[in-house]
Amino acid sequence: MPLMNVVIRNPPRAASAAVTALASHGVATVHEAQGRTGLLAAYLRPIYPGARIAGTAVTVSLPPCDNWMIHVAVEQCAPGDVLVVAPTSPSDAGYFGDLLGCSLAARGVVGLVIDAGVRDVRELTAARFPVWSRAVFAQGTVKETLGSVNVPVVCAGALVHPGDVVVADDDGVCVVPRRDAAQVAERCAARESKEAAVRERLRRGELGLDVYAMRARLAERGLVYRDAAPDED
Amino acid sequence: MPLMNVVIRNPPRAASAAVTALASHGVATVHEAQGRTGLLAAYLRPIYPGARIAGTAVTVSLPPCDNWMIHVAVEQCAPGDVLVVAPTSPSDAGYFGDLLGCSLAARGVVGLVIDAGVRDVRELTAARFPVWSRAVFAQGTVKETLGSVNVPVVCAGALVHPGDVVVADDDGVCVVPRRDAAQVAERCAARESKEAAVRERLRRGELGLDVYAMRARLAERGLVYRDAAPDED
Amino acid sequence: MPLMNVVIRNPPRAASAAVTALASHGVATVHEAQGRTGLLAAYLRPIYPGARIAGTAVTVSLPPCDNWMIHVAVEQCAPGDVLVVAPTSPSDAGYFGDLLGCSLAARGVVGLVIDAGVRDVRELTAARFPVWSRAVFAQGTVKETLGSVNVPVVCAGALVHPGDVVVADDDGVCVVPRRDAAQVAERCAARESKEAAVRERLRRGELGLDVYAMRARLAERGLVYRDAAPDED
Amino acid sequence: MPLMNVVIRNPPRAASAAVTALASHGVATVHEAQGRTGLLAAYLRPIYPGARIAGTAVTVSLPPCDNWMIHVAVEQCAPGDVLVVAPTSPSDAGYFGDLLGCSLAARGVVGLVIDAGVRDVRELTAARFPVWSRAVFAQGTVKETLGSVNVPVVCAGALVHPGDVVVADDDGVCVVPRRDAAQVAERCAARESKEAAVRERLRRGELGLDVYAMRARLAERGLVYRDAAPDED
Amino acid sequence: MPLMNVVIRNPPRAASAAVTALASHGVATVHEAQGRTGLLAAYLRPIYPGARIAGTAVTVSLPPCDNWMIHVAVEQCAPGDVLVVAPTSPSDAGYFGDLLGCSLAARGVVGLVIDAGVRDVRELTAARFPVWSRAVFAQGTVKETLGSVNVPVVCAGALVHPGDVVVADDDGVCVVPRRDAAQVAERCAARESKEAAVRERLRRGELGLDVYAMRARLAERGLVYRDAAPDED
Amino acid sequence: MPLMNVVIRNPPRAASAAVTALASHGVATVHEAQGRTGLLAAYLRPIYPGARIAGTAVTVSLPPCDNWMIHVAVEQCAPGDVLVVAPTSPSDAGYFGDLLGCSLAARGVVGLVIDAGVRDVRELTAARFPVWSRAVFAQGTVKETLGSVNVPVVCAGALVHPGDVVVADDDGVCVVPRRDAAQVAERCAARESKEAAVRERLRRGELGLDVYAMRARLAERGLVYRDAAPDED
Repeated sequence: MPLMNVVIRNPPRAASAAVTALASHGVATVHEAQGRTGLLAAYLRPIYPGARIAGTAVTVSLPPCDNWMIHVAVEQCAPGDVLVVAPTSPSDAGYFGDLLGCSLAARGVVGLVIDAGVRDVRELTAARFPVWSRAVFAQGTVKETLGSVNVPVVCAGALVHPGDVVVADDDGVCVVPRRDAAQVAERCAARESKEAAVRERLRRGELGLDVYAMRARLAERGLVYRDAAPDED
Repeated sequence: MPLMNVVIRNPPRAASAAVTALASHGVATVHEAQGRTGLLAAYLRPIYPGARIAGTAVTVSLPPCDNWMIHVAVEQCAPGDVLVVAPTSPSDAGYFGDLLGCSLAARGVVGLVIDAGVRDVRELTAARFPVWSRAVFAQGTVKETLGSVNVPVVCAGALVHPGDVVVADDDGVCVVPRRDAAQVAERCAARESKEAAVRERLRRGELGLDVYAMRARLAERGLVYRDAAPDED
Repeated sequence: MPLMNVVIRNPPRAASAAVTALASHGVATVHEAQGRTGLLAAYLRPIYPGARIAGTAVTVSLPPCDNWMIHVAVEQCAPGDVLVVAPTSPSDAGYFGDLLGCSLAARGVVGLVIDAGVRDVRELTAARFPVWSRAVFAQGTVKETLGSVNVPVVCAGALVHPGDVVVADDDGVCVVPRRDAAQVAERCAARESKEAAVRERLRRGELGLDVYAMRARLAERGLVYRDAAPDED
Repeated sequence: MPLMNVVIRNPPRAASAAVTALASHGVATVHEAQGRTGLLAAYLRPIYPGARIAGTAVTVSLPPCDNWMIHVAVEQCAPGDVLVVAPTSPSDAGYFGDLLGCSLAARGVVGLVIDAGVRDVRELTAARFPVWSRAVFAQGTVKETLGSVNVPVVCAGALVHPGDVVVADDDGVCVVPRRDAAQVAERCAARESKEAAVRERLRRGELGLDVYAMRARLAERGLVYRDAAPDED
Repeated sequence: MPLMNVVIRNPPRAASAAVTALASHGVATVHEAQGRTGLLAAYLRPIYPGARIAGTAVTVSLPPCDNWMIHVAVEQCAPGDVLVVAPTSPSDAGYFGDLLGCSLAARGVVGLVIDAGVRDVRELTAARFPVWSRAVFAQGTVKETLGSVNVPVVCAGALVHPGDVVVADDDGVCVVPRRDAAQVAERCAARESKEAAVRERLRRGELGLDVYAMRARLAERGLVYRDAAPDED
Repeated sequence: MPLMNVVIRNPPRAASAAVTALASHGVATVHEAQGRTGLLAAYLRPIYPGARIAGTAVTVSLPPCDNWMIHVAVEQCAPGDVLVVAPTSPSDAGYFGDLLGCSLAARGVVGLVIDAGVRDVRELTAARFPVWSRAVFAQGTVKETLGSVNVPVVCAGALVHPGDVVVADDDGVCVVPRRDAAQVAERCAARESKEAAVRERLRRGELGLDVYAMRARLAERGLVYRDAAPDED
């Protein structure tokens, strides 16, 4: 029964080499490299453009409109972690602000992913503490009801286990299961070197139709080319 | 009966000392300091990041898709005012653009809050005229039907009286009733000095659990701590 | 029957002089100048602020979650074109990314308008390739089903023919029918010189009520002015 | 300062004759009769079709995700009242269910309007207790934080005072200020007898163009009639 | 230039035999039969369940929040028509109610499709006048600005020409170009007789995997079947 | 790595006694009885009112806009199952219609929960095959890309394992982990007998304030009661 509120200490985390490797790839690449899985919902947006992180998940499951468990979770965070916060019911309230940002930064946490709202985004932006959230909203929360830390959570439609790798950039957020991290990082590297070659050819003006040898299959499917009718006016 | 269309001249405005004091605090602080009330809906967003204002409300109630009354309202504006525009039916059309921005700026108005759309945001941004709106949309409006100026309005879910203080920043928009402005400003100041001390402790690595003395109450509610099972792989 | 999948080559395009002229006006002006028509839906947003383009449309109609036809469309693009992509069913998947951006830029395409999602927005922004989209989302698409290029499409609620002029800026996106382009550009110029004079008067503090001579009509409609009751506190 | 949580007993209520009169008109008529004001937001929907009520408002302002104050409000309800519930922050949680419905029905309350979610809609429907809500959702709430009863609230974008008349049907919800109730009811009756005559003419096939004598004004505005070009196929 | 407001009289309409034939098929079938095209957006919903219509389109393009042109359009309607209303900017206001419903019914119009709101849905439902709309909202509109009747419109994302066939049921709304109507109707009939045979086999318990002979292609793509691990509890 | 597409045969299912017991309780009760967890998102709505089911989950993970795996899943279904379909990317297309409904009904499946669209709702309703979906939309899908059957899926924000109990009614959908089913059913029964007693007292007019003994705690928190000021008019 999921009635007990629990804090799990020291969950196994993905190896830091894999996290570092994943940090150098974008979310789109990571998502493709693991078979088009792991994306969190598109409504999660960064509070400022240009941030790009990867870190190991410390997860928080908490009741709607109550941020008490975030304070509990801070103690469980280590350098290189990403805090992943999922209310048990949807809410746009501002669960997280400047003070919690200071506290996480002091512990070496590299960012926050929250399926809810945040506030103090001016201060968080000035401090370059990156956050992906579903809303920016000044509305406060209470501290009345327990939840859990470092249990599996569903955040913005994706299942996140503590210790999984969370990768985030301007395209969104992707989770990589802890044990898959090294293999996904390798696939990302392979994918990117292949893409670098393609990019160079496209830049020089070659067509994707030729680079990817698509013409035969298009013809086979029945694509028809036709010149426009002469312009009547 | 609310059938008469009226322009109220020279409504009493909050004292400028209180407005100035509130301008130095963020929306989240103001909202907390007045008992978690006064927030306008989270869908109001600034047209560019970083703006931060406080001013006295000149209110406009107007019909959907018709911006005639904004022209009427300009004349009622004084330096330090914020124009607050609320259509009587939801609409994302662009009621406000560059020319109205010039006109308001010429009268010393410090910003616009509108529960509808705006346009010419490139020019408004270049001129640093701050706007909080529910949409950016080039769609024009007509000038056919009357409304009222400086009557109480509901804007983005909050009741705003003329002369109230409107505070806005990247976290959203908050209204402070005119007569409460000084007292709320004092509470903001008290809250912020308390927060400054907390911030310093959190920055040095102390935990909110200790700073706020939360551990006993968490235990009393039954929070359980447990080490993660040894990693099996 | 719309069952045939077809690529139309060399559709007539709006004259480049008209495109150049339209590029100097904003979307709000163009929309007004052609009788408040032609706007695409407000949910299309630029991936970075400040971009401002006009170009001739190359249109793509494609099935949901499948971006194959974008590769086909690249070959049909010429310098000065804007690619306009419309899935036949709504979708927020990321149909377009960095590599396609390189390919379009190499052909002189000035931007993308897509009624769906894009990804790699960090790279597209760095390359200053402007995109207006309904979502930013890393989710990939497949290459399985045909569509058509350079047929009329409905994109974000507006009908776009190949060769039409597409104008886009921070206010949104507007389409100008190919044959109307020169006339609309003239009307824009007329409108803007009129507005320049008004802007100067407003900046000096004149009221729109006087500049536009609105007072008589307001009185005729019954607008009442009244002083606020003396403040009782 | 709005910090005190208060329950106002026995607020003045609109006269029952006016409420009864308004109950016989639809929401659209009431809204028109008071100058197109008073509508609550379109997202409020009835839990079952066909309900049609008018009653005097008992208002509840409560914190998000906390329904404690609804229990407090029940005691303040009298026969003929409508309960109007407005969280201070948006929420879709299920604040109200079958048991509260029994309790309100036992006191003669004629319906519920809530800017949040409800649950047990099967039982509420079977009992024919009408509810207008922004969501149907089983998610529970807590009972931890106070609010107020019978203070003015903004509910779904409209200002409601205790004792105002709330009219609701399949078209939505409209509020009539207490003191205007009799006059609005009269205007409704006048409007409806006029409409009855028009309806009869339209049913017999007369055109609104003639019934409302619109043709001259349309021509004056420049409307052009033209026969379709002969069909070319 | 689209500046002229025009009413086109007697546009060619699809042949009534084809309309009758299409009326016997559902929207999903019609949409498939014409190559998965022609659907209006999913947000158009019927005001009551179970309605099912097909008719020839009389189209109305009108400004936001202004329903004047609907009155003009009524005169252009003939028995068997469907009125298709598209504001030039999105709006949820109630453009259409009981009186206009009487007027259309008196002329033999079989239904309304409107990319906006309607009101008086209780009366429209009682009269069994079917409507597909994006909102139900009591908010009134004005009669100030012209539009056009029987010009091509984009309604809920689909291009509709006057005289096209509009098919609508609980699944949504689909438009069939006038000249394709007979051919699409034939394809629908072919599709449905094929489906009837399949339905019978499925009802008897045969699997779609076998009826559609999917197993080989699934294996070729690499689908793996595996028994669940023995249950450990 | 989640790259392999797999069909798991014969997953362990919750015991039928527990499923039967849960079927007699509503979703709100089940959700409360397991500690306010397990709810799927509020946007899942039934296609017709009044349906109420419980069954064991057969889960389907499939790519966006592709329903091939539903055909695969049918074969894995047994009497008493509920099909749970989750695209790997959000989509409102119509993945499911009348024919698949016939096929599932023939196998004794009691309902469908799908985080996407369905079509043929008229026929599904006539056949009383209950469906909870996020959209009703005629848009078709393709059969090109594999997915998996009977793997854990995130559906509408909740984690569902094959064999879990899915309970659904007009309030939404709730999942009960397989091993918890009997215990949750017991708690539901306990909760409902307690509620039956309360309901009876409330029906007789007792107040929740007294039934739940809330008055002391309200006073302790500082709730103030005050008579309304005498009515001044």
